[in-house]
Formats: sequence, C-alpha cells, structure tokens
Amino acid sequence: MRPGASFHQMWRELLPVGRSAATGGYRRHAWTGADAECRAWFRAQAEARALAYETDRNGNQWAWLDGSDGAAGNAVVTGSHLDSVPDGGAFDGPLGVVSAFAALDELHGRGVRPARPLAVVNFADEEGARFGLACVGSRLAAGQLTPEQARELRDDDGVSLPRAMERAGHDPDAIGPDPERLARIGAFVELHIEQGRNLAAEDAPPGAAGAPAAGRAVGVASAIWPHGRWRFDFRGEANHAGTTRLEDRRDPMLTYANTVLAARKKARLAGALATFGKVAVEPNGVNAIASLVRGWLDSRAPDEETLAAVVAEIERSAAERGARDGVRVAVTRESATPVVEFAHGLRDRIAARLGGAPVLPTGAGHDAGILSAEIPTAMLFVRNPTGVSHSPAESAEEDDCVAGVRALADVLEDLACP
Amino acid sequence: MRPGASFHQMWRELLPVGRSAATGGYRRHAWTGADAECRAWFRAQAEARALAYETDRNGNQWAWLDGSDGAAGNAVVTGSHLDSVPDGGAFDGPLGVVSAFAALDELHGRGVRPARPLAVVNFADEEGARFGLACVGSRLAAGQLTPEQARELRDDDGVSLPRAMERAGHDPDAIGPDPERLARIGAFVELHIEQGRNLAAEDAPPGAAGAPAAGRAVGVASAIWPHGRWRFDFRGEANHAGTTRLEDRRDPMLTYANTVLAARKKARLAGALATFGKVAVEPNGVNAIASLVRGWLDSRAPDEETLAAVVAEIERSAAERGARDGVRVAVTRESATPVVEFAHGLRDRIAARLGGAPVLPTGAGHDAGILSAEIPTAMLFVRNPTGVSHSPAESAEEDDCVAGVRALADVLEDLACP
Repeated sequence: MRPGASFHQMWRELLPVGRSAATGGYRRHAWTGADAECRAWFRAQAEARALAYETDRNGNQWAWLDGSDGAAGNAVVTGSHLDSVPDGGAFDGPLGVVSAFAALDELHGRGVRPARPLAVVNFADEEGARFGLACVGSRLAAGQLTPEQARELRDDDGVSLPRAMERAGHDPDAIGPDPERLARIGAFVELHIEQGRNLAAEDAPPGAAGAPAAGRAVGVASAIWPHGRWRFDFRGEANHAGTTRLEDRRDPMLTYANTVLAARKKARLAGALATFGKVAVEPNGVNAIASLVRGWLDSRAPDEETLAAVVAEIERSAAERGARDGVRVAVTRESATPVVEFAHGLRDRIAARLGGAPVLPTGAGHDAGILSAEIPTAMLFVRNPTGVSHSPAESAEEDDCVAGVRALADVLEDLACP
Repeated sequence: MRPGASFHQMWRELLPVGRSAATGGYRRHAWTGADAECRAWFRAQAEARALAYETDRNGNQWAWLDGSDGAAGNAVVTGSHLDSVPDGGAFDGPLGVVSAFAALDELHGRGVRPARPLAVVNFADEEGARFGLACVGSRLAAGQLTPEQARELRDDDGVSLPRAMERAGHDPDAIGPDPERLARIGAFVELHIEQGRNLAAEDAPPGAAGAPAAGRAVGVASAIWPHGRWRFDFRGEANHAGTTRLEDRRDPMLTYANTVLAARKKARLAGALATFGKVAVEPNGVNAIASLVRGWLDSRAPDEETLAAVVAEIERSAAERGARDGVRVAVTRESATPVVEFAHGLRDRIAARLGGAPVLPTGAGHDAGILSAEIPTAMLFVRNPTGVSHSPAESAEEDDCVAGVRALADVLEDLACP
C-alpha cells in the first residue's frame, strides 16, 4: 500500500472520534470514552499488522515489530499521543501515531526488514487537559512523576486519576517507573505537526548543514523552551455590584485584568511567551463583585533565566496592583519543565538523512521532551500553513503529511537497519 | 410574643436552609430544592397565624389577613423574597419576609385590628441568579415580562424556566400578567437590609424633614438608580499558548482585561458603577489561547443619561482595543431597568411616621421597584454596619433588626388603620 493510501485510511477512521458537533474541536481527554475509542483503534492497527500489542503499567500503548537483532538498548520507537486539549485540532498527537503506522507500512512496501526491534507508541494523557499535568504517561515511566503524586491528581469533577484509570479498565495500582522498558530503547523519534510557522514562513530557519530550508515540509527539532504553569489566586471581597461604592470595593477582577495585561507586556519585552487562558471566578454572578478570581499563567522562554525573570516580574506587578485594590495575591507553581536539548548526534544524523532538513526550536512540551532525559530522543515537525494549534483550525496539507510519513520511514530505516 | 422573640424564632428556622457548608453562603436559587424549603417555611408561617395562604399564577406566595374594610385597591402588602444570589448572605430578601410576619405578630400584640386587608408576600426568583433575569415573579405579575419571554429563559444547565417550575410543582402554563391581584393593593412596603453604608456612615443623609439621621437603624428609600446588564462577547482565535508568537495571536483575554479596567475608570469619572463579576471562557485550558471570552457588565448610575453614556464609553473602549488585538467585540443588552422614583406621598408619610427617618437612594433593583410602576410602593432599609451585601459577610445587628420590625409595624398600623 502506498504511504498516502495507508495514511488516509487510518486518518479517516480516527477523524470522527471525540469530535464535538458544536465546535468541530476534539475532546479526547485522558481515560474518557473518546480516549477509549482512540485506544481501541490503536490496538486494532497493531493487530491488523500482526504487531505485538501491549499496554504498559502506566497505560501507554505499544505495538512491537521485533527485529532479528534484539539486544537490549537498541530498539527504535516512534509515535506520539491520541488525547487532545479541550476543543483541540485533529493533528496534535494523532498525526504522529498515524504517521508511525504508515511509516511501518512504507518500510514493508520497500521490502525493508529492520535489524532492530521497532515499535509504535501511544503515550497516555499527554495534554494534561483533564488532570492539569501534561505528559503523565511518559513522566510516570521516566520516574519524573511518582505514583503518589499521580494518585493526588483530580479532574474538575473531583474524580481522581486512579479512579478514572480504573473506570477505563486499567489497574491504577500498577503505575510507576518503568526503567526496564526504557532501557530497551536506543532512539525515540516523535513526529508532530509544527505548532508555529517556522516551516511555513518565508524566513524559515536553515538546515543543520546550512542547507536552504525554503519550501520544506519537514523539519527537525533542536530544543524545547523551558516552560511552566503558575496559578494566581486573587482574593477580594464579594459584594453587591449595584450598591457598593467604588472606593469601598476589594474587586479581584481588577487585579486579574491588570495582571493579564502586565504579563503580555513583560513577555514581549523579554522575547518570551505569557498567556492567561484559563480563569475561574467565585461566585461568578452578574451582580456580584467577585470574591475570588483564579487565573492560570502559562509562560515559556528561550532559557530558564529569562523565564524566571519574566514570571517574577508578573508576580511583582500582580502584588503591586493587589495592594492598590485591597486584593491578596497568592501564586502557586503548578508545573515547571526545564529546557530540553534533543540529542545532538541523533538530531544531526536525522537532519542529514533528510537532505539537510531545517532545525528549529519549539515552545511546546512533548513526551519526547520528557524521555530525552532518559534516552536519545528526536522530533520531526510537519509544516503547518497557519501555525494554528490547539484549535479546530489546526491543519496540514495532505502532501506534507505524506512527506512526513516518507521522512519518518527514511529515519526509521536509517536507525533500525544499521 | 415580643417582636424580638417572634423574629428570632423565625430567623433561626430559616438560617440553615440552602447554606453551603463550604462557603457559608446561601444558594437558594429559584425553583431548586433549597427554594422549595424556603417556600414550605413561608406557607407554614402563614398557616400558623391562620392567614389565608395562596400561590399566584407566577409562583409568588401570599399570606392574607383580611381586614373589615375590603374595598378593592386598599390592601396593604409587605414582604420581599427568599431566594439568593450564588453564595449570598442571610439578610438580602429573608429579612423583609421574616420582618413582615414579625410585624404582624407585633400588631397582634398591640391589639391592633387592621381595617384594611393586610398581606405578606414572597416574590419568586427576585435575584435572577439561575435564569439571568432579576425579579421574574414581580415582572410577570406587572406585565413587564411576557410569558413568551419568560419561557425562553434557561439556566446554565440548559433547563428552561417552565421546566424548572414544573419540576417544583408549579404549572408553567399559568404564568402571565395579574392585574386583578395588583388592583387590590393600595400600598406595597418592602423592608430590606441596606446594601451600602448610608445608614452606618458618620455622614448619613438627613431625614425627609431635615431631622438628624445619625444613629438611625431604619431609613426610607427615595429612588432606585437605573441599571442594566450587558453581555460582552470577545471572539479571537484559539491557539497553542506555547508556540504562537505574540504578534500572531488574536487573544480575547487581553481585550477583556482592558475592558474591565476601562469600565472601572469610566464609571469612576462619571460617578456611576460598573462591574464585571461573571466570566465564561472557551476553551478555558491552561495552555490554550482563548477563542472566546464572555464577560457580563453590570452598570448603574444616578440617571439614565449618565448610565447610557458610561456604557457607550465602555463599548467604544472595548471596540478600539479589540481592533488592536484582532478580536471581534459584540455587546448584547440583556436587561435594562429605568430609574424608579418611589411614590413621594407614601415615602413622606412613612418618613414622618418614623420620626423623620433618613431618606436615601439605592443602586439595587427590587420587586418594589418593578411594582412601583403599577401601585404606590415604598421601601424601608435596615442599617448594615459594613455595607457588605451579596456575600456571606452581609450582616445586621440584632437590635437593628428588631427596630426594623417595630418600624414596619408602625407603618402597617398607620396605613391599614386609617
């Protein structure tokens, strides 16, 4: 089967799963019914190709094509995730999993028999949309999240992660580090839609060897910016919006609003990113001054020093305005991910194999970033014309998706048939 | 029974109903279980006093003490409402209903036999916390809300007002104007906790006849400021918070934040009030730039011209910032209530009967404001030491509550025994 045909058939099967008719966006949150449908699809793909299917202790799914040379530490793994953010797009995650199976089909079509074990993986709960922490499946496997910490995670309805896993048929008592499995892997390559316009822009970055990058459908990742999430609690005093004099108010919405604008400004001045995209208000009544506004800051920067400085400035601005508004400001760091430099040798080998593909950084976290602390890891990016991501408008051209499959097959052939 | 004893017994009975253990605030939203408990309490109070109990076509509850002089248009009615805002206080509404029954007890204790019919009323759904429109029970009765409009109201779970009424055992097909009932009423007096600090402040306003107001527990309303609710829809583009360059964003949170601060400033300059207390965000994910931020503006001013000017300036500011942010701004007026001047004759008679009580305006809407377009209406305010309202911190001194009961009894005696 041609890579295009194989890819498109899988893509069409997966497309309706977990899609909201109202928004056109995806709601494939970890351990929900839509997630279960995606996981059943993954298993069916593995079985249709006679790959050895397994679910690991942390709920990550694997489909193994065993090569003749089964020494420890030489397996080549590719894949991504199938879950989504709320009302996310079709490509973030699934493109990497579908392309992984399609690349195996392409190798089969080329008559390539890998010497090393090859696997496709679907990491559980990458987006963290339900329990608030991203990359739970890979973090647990790599020992970067303890089972105790994971068991404390709860969704907005108060359902704990263990309870959600249990309802989905997975034993939550089994979760924990998985060093033996990771020790089998010599390289992990995650293909992902680019979440930005580096490949689409006129001034795309050059390839590793300085090769011209214009018009390239596929790039190679250099690094992931350090990033984190901070919860800002602005506490004032609930009161009647129609009777309380302005000077008697302690309105946390004002402090929140000022902090949103300050975050944008501080990030702009530092060449960083800062976003408030999630808010919760109490009591959230039209004629009630809020008692509590809770806003979540997502911030990223090229290096950790800049990130720390930007967040500190936003905190300082919030505290200053809070003092003026009679509002208490408390900031909690909910997650922090250090800078990830992907393995240079693997990155350069891949870029060379792809004829001098562009090499570019990203601000988005990925399972590949988590695993890079444990094993040699690389990422391929497929061109995104608008750069839009985490939205139903996320898209890639069909030809570029097929180019991504071919590039991934080239890389797997290079790595698994030494 | 002394007014204090009667008042306190009723107060204690009602206090636990619909109170959240988590916040200490009340959640007595219209046609919920907590509301049903309040309504059962009202009926029991009527029956314990052998008052004629009835529920009108719009779900408002009445308890009638028929006087000897039963001519049409001479009934004297007092009361308020028992529902609450989300996490509201104990006094807003219930103080007026409990004081109404206690005032009847006081008249009974004084041996007063009213010549005119007297009634206590509990208006349904005054706060509008569930269906977004305040004073639904009195608006329907006065013909200021049509049954067709009321049937379109829905709560946040999509439950319609008729469905909610039906579930609570009330026939939704019966709702509509009630001119015969209103035509029986010669005066409506609503006692309410003050939602502000006019009575508590050192510089309390003077009484109608210029009598000194310092240290007064009870005041009389002059007018209700015109007010309204406007929904601001800020539409941008969902995108990944970690990968989208600041200059490529269309982030509606920025436009919202700027509008919150602009509203405060415009209101301050105009001597008006403007509040954003309710927000809804889509998709509301930590690492997603919002696609839609919906904020509700509550605004009030001493006169309608000022109110219109303030809201127009806020709209203009939102549109200007929206153009900078690439965000579309749409504004929908959800409700508008014109200025209410309470009947001057009734107001002056009451202030005189109470020994020159202070006369003061308020920014809060009330059923008395709705009914003032149909019948002579007045309000009594009971001192609120902190001015806090629509919050669990709302409070009044016990002595002031008892003074309110005595004042209301004085007024009813004056009006019903001519």
